Amino acid sequence: MKAAIITIGDEILIGTTIDTNSAWLAEKLNLLGISIYEIISVSDEKFHIMSALKRAEEHAQLILITGGLGPTNDDITKKTLADYFNAELKLFPEVYKVLKEYFDHRGIQLSEKNRTLAELPANCTAIRNPKGTAWGMWFEERGKVYVSMPGVPWEMKSIMHDTVLPKLKQKFSLPAILHYHILTAAIAESQLAEKLTVFEAQLPANFKLAYLPDMGFVKLRLSATGNNMNELRQQMNHQVERVKADASKHIYGFENDIFEQVIGNMLAEKNMTIATAESCTGGYIAHRITTVAGSSAYYKGSVIAYANEVKTAELGVSPHTIQQQGAVSEQTVKEMLTGVIKKLNTDMGIAVSGIAGPDGGTDEKPVGTVWIAVGNETNMVVRQVQLPGNRKQIITLTAVVALEMLRRFLLK
Amino acid sequence: MKAAIITIGDEILIGTTIDTNSAWLAEKLNLLGISIYEIISVSDEKFHIMSALKRAEEHAQLILITGGLGPTNDDITKKTLADYFNAELKLFPEVYKVLKEYFDHRGIQLSEKNRTLAELPANCTAIRNPKGTAWGMWFEERGKVYVSMPGVPWEMKSIMHDTVLPKLKQKFSLPAILHYHILTAAIAESQLAEKLTVFEAQLPANFKLAYLPDMGFVKLRLSATGNNMNELRQQMNHQVERVKADASKHIYGFENDIFEQVIGNMLAEKNMTIATAESCTGGYIAHRITTVAGSSAYYKGSVIAYANEVKTAELGVSPHTIQQQGAVSEQTVKEMLTGVIKKLNTDMGIAVSGIAGPDGGTDEKPVGTVWIAVGNETNMVVRQVQLPGNRKQIITLTAVVALEMLRRFLLK
Repeated sequence: MKAAIITIGDEILIGTTIDTNSAWLAEKLNLLGISIYEIISVSDEKFHIMSALKRAEEHAQLILITGGLGPTNDDITKKTLADYFNAELKLFPEVYKVLKEYFDHRGIQLSEKNRTLAELPANCTAIRNPKGTAWGMWFEERGKVYVSMPGVPWEMKSIMHDTVLPKLKQKFSLPAILHYHILTAAIAESQLAEKLTVFEAQLPANFKLAYLPDMGFVKLRLSATGNNMNELRQQMNHQVERVKADASKHIYGFENDIFEQVIGNMLAEKNMTIATAESCTGGYIAHRITTVAGSSAYYKGSVIAYANEVKTAELGVSPHTIQQQGAVSEQTVKEMLTGVIKKLNTDMGIAVSGIAGPDGGTDEKPVGTVWIAVGNETNMVVRQVQLPGNRKQIITLTAVVALEMLRRFLLK
Repeated sequence: MKAAIITIGDEILIGTTIDTNSAWLAEKLNLLGISIYEIISVSDEKFHIMSALKRAEEHAQLILITGGLGPTNDDITKKTLADYFNAELKLFPEVYKVLKEYFDHRGIQLSEKNRTLAELPANCTAIRNPKGTAWGMWFEERGKVYVSMPGVPWEMKSIMHDTVLPKLKQKFSLPAILHYHILTAAIAESQLAEKLTVFEAQLPANFKLAYLPDMGFVKLRLSATGNNMNELRQQMNHQVERVKADASKHIYGFENDIFEQVIGNMLAEKNMTIATAESCTGGYIAHRITTVAGSSAYYKGSVIAYANEVKTAELGVSPHTIQQQGAVSEQTVKEMLTGVIKKLNTDMGIAVSGIAGPDGGTDEKPVGTVWIAVGNETNMVVRQVQLPGNRKQIITLTAVVALEMLRRFLLK
């Protein structure tokens, strides 16, 4: 089964808006077993929209249209669709009722202009927009399905979730498809693939494995197709267990879990507090920890010691250590760690010191050399890593590796 | 003059890749005075590419094609273009020479497979790819221009910059267009627009002003069209001076200036050092400062005092202050500021304390309430701001406002 996507709107053709809707729609439809034949972006012109519709329906059974339903241009898209299907615009009482309630609730008079929001092509089924006043439209004509939605991403997504995706599953006899995400941190895609070589070789024919890497993380997506959803669920559970057996150490969560939240929950459960002592990351690890709402329950603070004198004065790193072994060394991060824990009176900490570049690298310690210490005085894990990329990437990867070290430390 | 963009590649139709190339191309072409008629994304199939080319050339004088030139699928796109123009693939000696040098330089034997990289449709002009081995192709047929480029964004951009954009300017008699960007921070788009009301009303007819907002920043783009570039430059200088007169306080830079770099340069020039004391931003201000390479010249470190006990113990905030006025108060950030400057021995500092939410707000101090102090003990600026948005937005906006306060402080 094939679909086409038409996006309507000048902002994409001018380049001020990146078309993220199409990628989102394409992913969701592919996950349902519907493949995208083509994506066409056109301007808010009747002729142009008509010709795109004509082209799209040549090869697709499903045509998704986004955009062109805003308050300033809703007439053109609705009118164009009505004309395309030789239908009239008519007032939909159920739409009018909801809009009236919406405006009444806000103490606004429903103007003649707003009243037209309830006028849709007579041959469509109106689709409620939970996040806005421009409704979606579902057409079944010529043996095909056409869906028109607003271009505002959250409105479109909400309409898709609530109505269009369920309706598509019902309308078309799509194969049963099940997806499951396994989330890993601080392991390269190639290393993970190596660990899963046997797993992949033995994967049943109705399963697919995708690696989705993103700055220190690799998301694994297992997809299974079949006829019976219950059977698929059982099969999926079995395959997930197999992935766990091969790569358990690197898995921090599943589906929509958030890395920093997972670690935060572990700290909160153990009733433990943490601090960070950062050099090359310049506060970025603290920032990642505090992106989590409620992190004040376990995070007390940090000392960002960019200058060596701050490492010495604030964290108690011995000048001798810095002189003999350098600011980027095992002994320095050890002393930074014990220093910050003592100073902020926490149960544990993270300390990092490294060379984020582009300057400051040497033959012995090139750009990307980072020392990381995690734990506390009596129980400490220290690692040296060599990270690739530019300054921004090195800072980001350092934070992911350090937080993953903390997660594993907490597992013990 | 109208152009069409064709993007070739399954990854866009599967939804794993967002098509950012088209927006980039659309913006660049619009800035040259070429408008985009249509964007079509198709799969790596000959028939599909052919039909997209046919559709595109119906309305456009320029057809830009990206993607489908990778090592695994270069034959299909090149072969398709050759067939489309009834041309043969032939070896281009100048391309072969460059490729041979490239591989020799890396000590790699030029294989038969790699040799095909030098084979292009006979009717094209080869365009050097400064960032890769797949060359671009420029065709002039049927009174139109067709350009094929790889889909890898940095390769495509580099080919556009070096060859395609200059060649387009030469080939087509485009109007003279001049653009200039004026960069502002920590002022809302609506407030800026208010300050520029008179300016806009008096803007000459050949000028346009665009507001491009992005999380605490508004970039102003002035665009001028005419026939004489020298004249435009003079006009532009005059208009830029007028913007400066009306909004000078909010302008931190022009064209490609980077906010944190501009502030870093000011600190370096004045030979001054800085530290931050952060509560609600949890290290994010320090992170922004240290994204700049070489920031160690002026940035010494930070104390991230999330817990009140850290504010007291490490920054010397009086427990009495916190008890009487709260951790989010004028007096607290003042004491945080003097505390961190003393502790890290810097010339000045930034201190912030606020409620990033979603919890922790009260009627008196709702989520988004932030106190910011900038300067040093003898010369301090303190402000309370009420910031909109979710936790992430409040953290980001706090950093921009605080850094902008620092910039203005340094101007004095």
